[in-house]
Amino acid sequence: VAAGASAGADVTVLPELATTGAAYRSAEEAAARAEPITGPAIERLRELSARLRLVLVAGFCETSGLDRPYDSAVVLDHGRLRGHHRKTHLWGREKIIFAAGRVAPPVVPTSVGRLGLVICYELEIPEVTRGLARVGAQIIVAPANWPDLPKPAGERPIEIAKAQSAAAANRVYVVVADCCGREREQSWTGGSVICDPGGYPLAGPRLGQPTLLTARVVPAEADDKSLGTYNDAFADLRPELYLANAGDPGFDRDPRMAAGGDAR
Amino acid sequence: VAAGASAGADVTVLPELATTGAAYRSAEEAAARAEPITGPAIERLRELSARLRLVLVAGFCETSGLDRPYDSAVVLDHGRLRGHHRKTHLWGREKIIFAAGRVAPPVVPTSVGRLGLVICYELEIPEVTRGLARVGAQIIVAPANWPDLPKPAGERPIEIAKAQSAAAANRVYVVVADCCGREREQSWTGGSVICDPGGYPLAGPRLGQPTLLTARVVPAEADDKSLGTYNDAFADLRPELYLANAGDPGFDRDPRMAAGGDAR
Repeated sequence: VAAGASAGADVTVLPELATTGAAYRSAEEAAARAEPITGPAIERLRELSARLRLVLVAGFCETSGLDRPYDSAVVLDHGRLRGHHRKTHLWGREKIIFAAGRVAPPVVPTSVGRLGLVICYELEIPEVTRGLARVGAQIIVAPANWPDLPKPAGERPIEIAKAQSAAAANRVYVVVADCCGREREQSWTGGSVICDPGGYPLAGPRLGQPTLLTARVVPAEADDKSLGTYNDAFADLRPELYLANAGDPGFDRDPRMAAGGDAR
Repeated sequence: VAAGASAGADVTVLPELATTGAAYRSAEEAAARAEPITGPAIERLRELSARLRLVLVAGFCETSGLDRPYDSAVVLDHGRLRGHHRKTHLWGREKIIFAAGRVAPPVVPTSVGRLGLVICYELEIPEVTRGLARVGAQIIVAPANWPDLPKPAGERPIEIAKAQSAAAANRVYVVVADCCGREREQSWTGGSVICDPGGYPLAGPRLGQPTLLTARVVPAEADDKSLGTYNDAFADLRPELYLANAGDPGFDRDPRMAAGGDAR
């Protein structure tokens, strides 16, 4: 954070579960490391955001009062708590270690603009990023821990394409702070990236390396959804043509429906 | 198409407006080239699909009875018309040259599996691809004409990331047949690509070159939406957390809504 401030950052984003690490063996172990939002970890980050005069976004392991803690994140703005989110879409073993949040990812007004706050996998859900952009998010910030998964030689991790696509589809900036290196048996991707509203990287990814990425962003540019002379990322949408319950897990996915009377 | 058949293709996809070219100067010029679906261009393609025993997807310029023709596509399966679509989301000057279709992109049952049929820009709308996958599309086929736009050195066109992301978010194959080279004043990207349900390219892109891409796809693999042991691309969705009217152009995008009483 101090290096970011020295580089002139107004906003600094740290990874998911940045205060504790993420590769827990059990819910009990995670719960033992959890703190409330009023605890010493967030207090220290809050003081840091005041002293360095910046907006600081960080993931932490939050006490829940349940048998599993939350995978949470905060937005701290010059010493003030401005945003708080509990991860709603859990990935992999997180499902047995954390409790899922029950409130949608928020748009957080800050001294530098409106931040959409998601945690890792939530960035990969198009409905989530669309919703944040629709209520005015200018920069989607994503503390993340991307597991380093197999991929074809020469290809960037697919998560990068998803981050780029979320930016471009919604004409917003996307900032991912990912872990790198190894934690217990887990290797992290180190896929931190800053994307512009066209979806192209302004900085990163420098895969697998500890890195401080910096880029100049103009939040108000994300308020302009136009795509050239004739198009607009939002005005072009035709919801009357979209499956109303496309995101509904209760929706009956029956191939015969698509195939009409001609199903194979 | 013959080269594809010789290479063993069961499905061959051609670009958008493949029978006529796409860089029209006016609606009148396009209308003069348009044919009905019963016209000689589609008849010739239909015969080709019968003779070569394959599924053929191609874009064409369709008579509309209006002052502007449609930017359409068909799915022809061993000599039989199985699918037809009129582009619903027009890009750039298409808005003054073509009439927009009024029916959502379809899922088309064929002898090789269920094809989701979109045309170019429609592939970039997350609501469209989600909807197609939700009603059972296994392979999303996208005849396209991607204008060759400026991009940072070393980066693939953002359209590629969007194609990859559509595949990965929905666990479907995505096949894009793009134009390349120059047509009048217009340069095309040549971004044809075949993506697997993980979002990674199975073939292409070979930017800017005329190319025949082939890949082996297993349509039934797209019926499995699981992501490892704990996740599922559809079951993980939590529509109760998504902005119900996120795709509604009539939705009032008011930053104060997001910022609550604390708007800047």
